[in-house]
Amino acid sequence: MRKGEQTREAILESAIRLASRVGLDGLTIGSLADELGLSKSGLFAHFGSKEELLVQMLERAAERFVEVVVKPALATPRGEPRVRALFELFLRWPEAVPQPGGCIFQAATVELDDRPGPARDRLVRMRRDWLAVVAEAVRRAIAEGHFRSDLDPEQFAFEMDGIALMWGHASRLLRDASADARASRAFEALLSAARTRRG
Amino acid sequence: MRKGEQTREAILESAIRLASRVGLDGLTIGSLADELGLSKSGLFAHFGSKEELLVQMLERAAERFVEVVVKPALATPRGEPRVRALFELFLRWPEAVPQPGGCIFQAATVELDDRPGPARDRLVRMRRDWLAVVAEAVRRAIAEGHFRSDLDPEQFAFEMDGIALMWGHASRLLRDASADARASRAFEALLSAARTRRG
Repeated sequence: MRKGEQTREAILESAIRLASRVGLDGLTIGSLADELGLSKSGLFAHFGSKEELLVQMLERAAERFVEVVVKPALATPRGEPRVRALFELFLRWPEAVPQPGGCIFQAATVELDDRPGPARDRLVRMRRDWLAVVAEAVRRAIAEGHFRSDLDPEQFAFEMDGIALMWGHASRLLRDASADARASRAFEALLSAARTRRG
Repeated sequence: MRKGEQTREAILESAIRLASRVGLDGLTIGSLADELGLSKSGLFAHFGSKEELLVQMLERAAERFVEVVVKPALATPRGEPRVRALFELFLRWPEAVPQPGGCIFQAATVELDDRPGPARDRLVRMRRDWLAVVAEAVRRAIAEGHFRSDLDPEQFAFEMDGIALMWGHASRLLRDASADARASRAFEALLSAARTRRG
């Protein structure tokens, strides 16, 4: 990797950590420059604008998400084990790629939903890709006979994501000590309803 | 109502609408003054600080939430109908109390979760109160025999809130035309799992 590329990635990783705490709106080129001990003009040389920085942060976060969630999950046996791996790795990803203020995609969702532009477009694509990955894993689990044949894979993905959103809410805002257990019970109920009925 | 009180409420309603679009961080005393055609000093006379404005906005939003969600739901027959009313009114409340950028509590969650202070404390109390209202309605539904006796009311409230969060996400960020139908199916599945098993 060339030096310029390494610097760019180090900047993006810092920006992701910082935005996790202060939000995408709270992140400024100035605060990021302070955090990194770089000049604002140096940062601008890499990114040109705040919107371009946001787009590249989201791209970088998505790359890391694929590394720590999607790839390891796709390496597990297809069917229910893979669906379970997707859920469990998804919940742990704010720790795996340090995001001390919680999942950056969740922060980005609230902040970008009313702000048309390249960053919002990128976020929407990423979120749709993720839901499609979950739905595809569910489709395989149906093909394997782990889940019932009339299960709607997109509906499953929607409900699984809802559990993950509520887990983030309960653990981060409410500091609810039972958030892990509640998310786990909700997910087991979702799996149970998805399984082929036997006998 | 005295004139000062009316002015204060008009300011808070505008602030809620504006924050719904631009976020709590994006809301400034200056932008709110522009929106209202007031002077910044006039606004400061009412609120003193941004944090105090946020606290009063959250209080005002909570009052309106009680008016348009909690009270009408508590006027429906206890049991499953009341639980259903809570869910359905909850989804529609960003329209009922105009929040053109979606539920202000959801925006506040992401923005305040890492920011200790009076506004965060107030938000946490409100969210806990809401989950307690749902859990209490579920408890009544168990007492009425509508839901099975071993149902965990807090778990139900957690899962219901997850569906509502995902609905907001799918409808506002993803502009998913099926968001209403998906949320409705998820909620019916939750109700179905909660019902007393007969036969």
